[in-house]
Amino acid sequence: MTFTATARAPETARRNGILQTGSRIVPEEVPIAFSYGGSSHAVMMATPDDLADFAVGFSLTEGIITGPAEISGIEVVEGEQGIDVQVSLVDDVADRLRARRRSMAGPVGCGLCGIESIEQAVRPVPDVSASPLALSHADIVRAVSLLNEAQPLHRETRAVHGAGFYLPGRGLIAVREDVGRHNALDKLCGAVIGASEKGGDGAVVVTSRLSVEMVQKAAILGSPVLIAISAPTALAIRTAEEAGMTLVALVRGEDFEIFTHPHRISPGSIADVA
Amino acid sequence: MTFTATARAPETARRNGILQTGSRIVPEEVPIAFSYGGSSHAVMMATPDDLADFAVGFSLTEGIITGPAEISGIEVVEGEQGIDVQVSLVDDVADRLRARRRSMAGPVGCGLCGIESIEQAVRPVPDVSASPLALSHADIVRAVSLLNEAQPLHRETRAVHGAGFYLPGRGLIAVREDVGRHNALDKLCGAVIGASEKGGDGAVVVTSRLSVEMVQKAAILGSPVLIAISAPTALAIRTAEEAGMTLVALVRGEDFEIFTHPHRISPGSIADVA
Repeated sequence: MTFTATARAPETARRNGILQTGSRIVPEEVPIAFSYGGSSHAVMMATPDDLADFAVGFSLTEGIITGPAEISGIEVVEGEQGIDVQVSLVDDVADRLRARRRSMAGPVGCGLCGIESIEQAVRPVPDVSASPLALSHADIVRAVSLLNEAQPLHRETRAVHGAGFYLPGRGLIAVREDVGRHNALDKLCGAVIGASEKGGDGAVVVTSRLSVEMVQKAAILGSPVLIAISAPTALAIRTAEEAGMTLVALVRGEDFEIFTHPHRISPGSIADVA
Repeated sequence: MTFTATARAPETARRNGILQTGSRIVPEEVPIAFSYGGSSHAVMMATPDDLADFAVGFSLTEGIITGPAEISGIEVVEGEQGIDVQVSLVDDVADRLRARRRSMAGPVGCGLCGIESIEQAVRPVPDVSASPLALSHADIVRAVSLLNEAQPLHRETRAVHGAGFYLPGRGLIAVREDVGRHNALDKLCGAVIGASEKGGDGAVVVTSRLSVEMVQKAAILGSPVLIAISAPTALAIRTAEEAGMTLVALVRGEDFEIFTHPHRISPGSIADVA
């Protein structure tokens, strides 16, 4: 089966009291399995696009690799019901993963990917406070405005999430979309490190709410600023506080709210926004 | 540590070009571990409310139990970083779970709760087509309107999901909220079967988008109608089609869209809506 990012679904719509048959374009949702050395590691329900970025970013944010050079190959195998993304690791990284798997307790499922204990769910995040990145108010407004314009899948479906990487002076250098917000961010992380950009040089911008996992992923990428259109959770705020990450959320037009480490954001002139 | 559903976070807000320090109420997000017979089964990032409903509903939709009588006890143990919900099962159900765990392959993580293969992610769902439930247009509009009014946590934070169970003639008999949409639905399932209501008698109404997992959970509850404020995925639509479930989505005021099995929805008079 060949999987596509969207599908046209027949429907009966009630509009202004009148029933009409028609159709709507909806996002597809495909089980994507990641396997390493032939062993299935995780299955994500995701948009079947940018799978190489997804494999690199997922491997990074799961702590399996520290950079793209540790992956020796990625093969995408389409099955009847989903896609198996087979990742080959360089030898010592593959050994490290095997050792880690052996140390994991018992044949259990989990609520978060790879998470089987409360301690893992709130794993310590890298400290990103060393990055000198500074943004102006205009940068924040611009980053969100650019992200809104760079989402073809969302324009088509109004039902997917986007994640972008913003570099002051250069704009959004990468945007990835997915039916799941964590997947969109993993794909973005893969695109950023795949392009040899440094996470510490830019801000991650997302359309979604900010759960702790979004903060963990951005911190693993090394980005010291996370900007979201929607609201953060209290745990996301505490985690960003500890990681030295500036968390900006609820960006609406030229308004926004800064929850942690506001020193990186300077007023500047919003009139600079294109 | 005592966990609460919300927290007040200090912030610096930019509004109309002016920076003001203040605070905002945000949803808490707490790792909730479910353990059965002393073994951790899954960790969900969730709102720490209605944990008994959550335990019952999660156990149901994960296929661990078929009804609340199969749980002999629930103990909630608060730790430093999260909450351990310890579920005791009646003997034969506990034996069944142990056998199932032994048959699961390897010490791996997963993307969805308990899911370690593509086949599990798209597991067959119960057929709900035998239910005679019929709703009018007015029921749909009323169910969503009632749900919008019955979400105290969302009113406070504007950042959580709600799930309700609507019975024609009786209205919404239960509503549960959570920072995660799957959790809100699991809590609702627990509340519905805990109140000895039959899933087949009513419609599930949710504020969120409809992924395949939402359809799976509603079908396991036995409900033949799933109503969502937001959009469905293509896989959710196909799964509802196969399960004989009527899927109504994108409910906006008196407008909505029916994607599968429209025979259960009769025009009726929308003027009946209170």
